[in-house]
Amino acid sequence: MLLLHLSDVDEASWARRFREVLGSYPVVQRGDDFNPDDVRYLFVWKPKADAFDGLNHLTAIFSLGAGVDAMLKNPKLPNVPIARFVDDDLSQRMSDYVVAHVTMHHRLYTRFRADQKAHRWSQLYPPAASETTVGIMGMGVLGQDAVARLKPLGFTLRSWSRSPKDIAGVEGFAGNATLDEFLSGTDILVNLLPLTAETTGILNYETFRKLRRGKLDGGPVIVNAARGGHQREADIVKALADGTLGAASLDVFEVEPLPADSPLWDIENCYITPHIAAISNETTGVTYFSKVLKDHEAGKPLINVVDRTRGY
Amino acid sequence: MLLLHLSDVDEASWARRFREVLGSYPVVQRGDDFNPDDVRYLFVWKPKADAFDGLNHLTAIFSLGAGVDAMLKNPKLPNVPIARFVDDDLSQRMSDYVVAHVTMHHRLYTRFRADQKAHRWSQLYPPAASETTVGIMGMGVLGQDAVARLKPLGFTLRSWSRSPKDIAGVEGFAGNATLDEFLSGTDILVNLLPLTAETTGILNYETFRKLRRGKLDGGPVIVNAARGGHQREADIVKALADGTLGAASLDVFEVEPLPADSPLWDIENCYITPHIAAISNETTGVTYFSKVLKDHEAGKPLINVVDRTRGY
Ligand SMILES: NC(=O)c1ccc[n+]([C@@H]2O[C@H](COP(=O)([O-])OP(=O)(O)OC[C@H]3O[C@@H](n4cnc5c(N)ncnc54)[C@H](OP(=O)(O)O)[C@@H]3O)[C@@H](O)[C@H]2O)c1
Ligand SMILES: NC(=O)c1ccc[n+]([C@@H]2O[C@H](COP(=O)([O-])OP(=O)(O)OC[C@H]3O[C@@H](n4cnc5c(N)ncnc54)[C@H](OP(=O)(O)O)[C@@H]3O)[C@@H](O)[C@H]2O)c1
Repeated sequence: MLLLHLSDVDEASWARRFREVLGSYPVVQRGDDFNPDDVRYLFVWKPKADAFDGLNHLTAIFSLGAGVDAMLKNPKLPNVPIARFVDDDLSQRMSDYVVAHVTMHHRLYTRFRADQKAHRWSQLYPPAASETTVGIMGMGVLGQDAVARLKPLGFTLRSWSRSPKDIAGVEGFAGNATLDEFLSGTDILVNLLPLTAETTGILNYETFRKLRRGKLDGGPVIVNAARGGHQREADIVKALADGTLGAASLDVFEVEPLPADSPLWDIENCYITPHIAAISNETTGVTYFSKVLKDHEAGKPLINVVDRTRGY
Repeated sequence: MLLLHLSDVDEASWARRFREVLGSYPVVQRGDDFNPDDVRYLFVWKPKADAFDGLNHLTAIFSLGAGVDAMLKNPKLPNVPIARFVDDDLSQRMSDYVVAHVTMHHRLYTRFRADQKAHRWSQLYPPAASETTVGIMGMGVLGQDAVARLKPLGFTLRSWSRSPKDIAGVEGFAGNATLDEFLSGTDILVNLLPLTAETTGILNYETFRKLRRGKLDGGPVIVNAARGGHQREADIVKALADGTLGAASLDVFEVEPLPADSPLWDIENCYITPHIAAISNETTGVTYFSKVLKDHEAGKPLINVVDRTRGY
């Protein structure tokens, strides 16, 4: 039996779709008449604190979200494998966001907008893409897709991950010991890390100070599309004010929705989007996890299983 | 003998470079002591009205600018071939501009900026790149480079040119009879046409009305990086005000510098840059035309010659 536990979306619609694809395999929602002991799979999106209550025979948890940081903090999380969704459509949308914000800053949007406000015609030629280095933190599913999109645009690329990577056209840095060197050659820093104990607060003032200066007019830039927990918003406010950062594009925040009194809203060179960089698609989500479930029932191993020790 | 006639740039610096590359071949500037009858080649950038005066033995004109519309209107233009500069570096920079502005509008920048100003957290997921159609007018050197950059990003692409094109992954439209059909499926219209009698004023209200509506939140968008003469600015003001256009990115203007009292400056969804989309590089420019000159002296035909009947 598959139990659905989805917040902020139309759970009934997902249930209908799962039933269409899974045929006779039972699919239920809380409130339906079923025996919790029959639930082998739990499909979650933004699980609430009580998501796992009473489920003593779970075999696996299916996470629609690519990030499982919140779920791993739930003290009642049962000790069963968590399989997460890996989806080309989501990667495409995330890269859409990343490319739009990287190219906007590379083309010195903040400067030209200020000139426009002042009715000022002041020519300055942005560097060619190859003269700008984009440094991507996190070289997993999303980081690798971003690289595949940014490379044909001509940017110089570097990456930072836990384990070494060998990706054509990308200078790879791995591990904490290389972080400073990675940052020192980065003009535009893109964060696509998972949120773990190690990566919490990594976008802080010290990090910003280590980015390359003098290449990008106005100063180096950060783009955070991963998790709000990665960033210290007070540090971003300070760095944008004192010129340590030239601009910041933020899709995620320490508290979401971003409180109406956050100073970030009114900062001219801070570009805010309301956690819409990428979304999981209902059709592909159902297709994906229906196959995972059937394969698992047929004795095949789960794919894209979260490593709880690493935290992602 | 090669004569230089460059406005708005350091002509002496170009002369030095040409002399380095051309060795014993004479390179002169106006004001130098030379016999105008010895001038076989004239190298121009933004030529003034008197650029061609007294040059009765010209063999060819070398144009640093990709667009020769202004030069062709000069009544004193001698009847010799005009060879224009075709440069990977310039194409790269133009595509940098095009990609930055296309992706910004695809990701609904105008809407999210308005939300930010209002401290409003309102989620809306932009379409995936593949759900958005970018229509490119002009499929020459620059149009084809733009296509090569936009395709890996996943956009649906269509093009409009004078003669039919067969480019993989791009739906081609050719000739005036197909313009309406081309426009009717375009969400983001990119102009990379040369300025000719036929293309003057092509970005007008009627054109904007024919773009596809209902796909891109806020309305269809135009991006003009070719020439100010392509656009009717009064029509752009009207279309942005009444919602016929959702946004416009303009790098070129009817009058440049854009007059301080132009209404365009203060329009929130009009994105102005001061004709900085792409610039010709001194090093590659000298290398390119030195080779063209030597080849021509050695009896080889000129390349990238302007067709005066077509006007580009
Ligand atoms: N804003 C949104 O709409 C949105 C949507 C989807 C996802 N996200 C976020 O994006 C994150 C990344 O997703 P993904 O699918 O690309 O994850 P993934 O495939 O698990 O990749 C994670 C990458 O981060 C690296 N990494 C992890 N911990 C590290 C550390 N301490 N130091 C250096 N590198 C480290 C990993 O290194 P190794 O390669 O060595 O393991 C890996 O390259 C998700 O966790 C989620 O939080 C946000
Ligand atoms: N803003 C800047 O910084 C900047 C910098 C460089 C250039 N530019 C402008 O960009 C323009 C294009 O450059 P390019 O090198 O790509 O030119 P190109 O190689 O000559 O290509 C011109 C394209 O436009 C098409 N075309 C011409 N007249 C047409 C008409 N009446 N109807 C439909 N299509 C028509 C041509 O069709 P065919 O293929 O059938 O001939 C061709 O595909 C230049 O002329 C210049 O004005 C601007």
